[in-house]
Amino acid sequence: MTSTGPRTSSRPGKSAIIAAALQCFHERGYEGSSIRDVAQVAGVTGAAVYHYYDSKQDLLMEIMEDFLAKSITATKNAVARAGSDPVARLFAAAQSHVLWNTSDIAASFVVNSEIRSLSPENRAKHIPKRDELQRIFDSAVEDGCREGLFETPWPLEASRAVTVMCTFVARWYRPGGPLSAEEISWRYGHMALSLVRAVRGPHMELPAYDGGMTIEPTSF
Amino acid sequence: MTSTGPRTSSRPGKSAIIAAALQCFHERGYEGSSIRDVAQVAGVTGAAVYHYYDSKQDLLMEIMEDFLAKSITATKNAVARAGSDPVARLFAAAQSHVLWNTSDIAASFVVNSEIRSLSPENRAKHIPKRDELQRIFDSAVEDGCREGLFETPWPLEASRAVTVMCTFVARWYRPGGPLSAEEISWRYGHMALSLVRAVRGPHMELPAYDGGMTIEPTSF
Repeated sequence: MTSTGPRTSSRPGKSAIIAAALQCFHERGYEGSSIRDVAQVAGVTGAAVYHYYDSKQDLLMEIMEDFLAKSITATKNAVARAGSDPVARLFAAAQSHVLWNTSDIAASFVVNSEIRSLSPENRAKHIPKRDELQRIFDSAVEDGCREGLFETPWPLEASRAVTVMCTFVARWYRPGGPLSAEEISWRYGHMALSLVRAVRGPHMELPAYDGGMTIEPTSF
Repeated sequence: MTSTGPRTSSRPGKSAIIAAALQCFHERGYEGSSIRDVAQVAGVTGAAVYHYYDSKQDLLMEIMEDFLAKSITATKNAVARAGSDPVARLFAAAQSHVLWNTSDIAASFVVNSEIRSLSPENRAKHIPKRDELQRIFDSAVEDGCREGLFETPWPLEASRAVTVMCTFVARWYRPGGPLSAEEISWRYGHMALSLVRAVRGPHMELPAYDGGMTIEPTSF
């Protein structure tokens, strides 16, 4: 429980309630969690939760919108830093998406499994933002195809496959595993380029398979 | 409600209860569904559910084990039919995995989101089978790398990315969409080969990007 200052020291702020809701939704799902569960995990009363949120649905929507908005910002920033080259843009988008999702595996799980639990109104607000994120990937892949840099005959399918494979790294990644999130994200950047059939060039040169199960990142 | 014969005509069989459980778990999650919910959807009493299953956990385990066992069988059969060539084996595994997951999007969703809800004992039984499925993909990718057919420096990461992208087609695929599951699975077979950097050859020739968003399947 984090104190946010003398005036609220007896009541955790919104961030503690959001963290508790995330933990509950991740462990038991949205429908399997009550406001009472969230309050208990946050160490507050149900009334304290209702002080900030009108309903459990509002809590879910805030979690989903916040994660998605930051995901879009992170991807846009990474792509902007990469410049105009579609190769660099796709690499940056894939890498950034892996890093973002692995940075909060509970939120990634909830956002990617609880669209079903959004109210029709909230879903109608959420889906266009999800599509906006996908369009960042699509745009890099389509530009790469137009410029003859990517040879996939199916830019949109390949782009969706890239987003999906990067998103769901968060399902198996755990901090402290054999590879850091940075190392994994770097490999996924390259795998994204392979998936869209990026034409070979200096930027696509990779070490040959050495017979081992995994090449240690220090080899690069 | 399906009658399974005169002796059981007043009580749906196990398959109706499994179908109801799948629908509940898919819509509301495991923790968000009760045996009462399942019975209601199946149109039976809770006692009728308990006639077949000792607990909700048993229902979940049967759903997960059945889907995974059939998934392994389908993938093994597809790979066996493909022969010894790693290119054909990976293509077949990817294609089969897309077809299998899109054949039951509710079961695919539940199996891929409710590992968290398995009891420790059931989880200990389930995980080795999930790994057995992954190993079919891994073996094709590793053989392809050893034979110089695939140039990915990260066979296991690429193999996992292939499995993930094929599994989660079921998250966006809906019957009646612009592409059939067969057409999608064929594209994913090719995308899997791209992802592992299969060396170019006659089997890897694909039509060039024609500037459209999607190439219609009839073009092939």
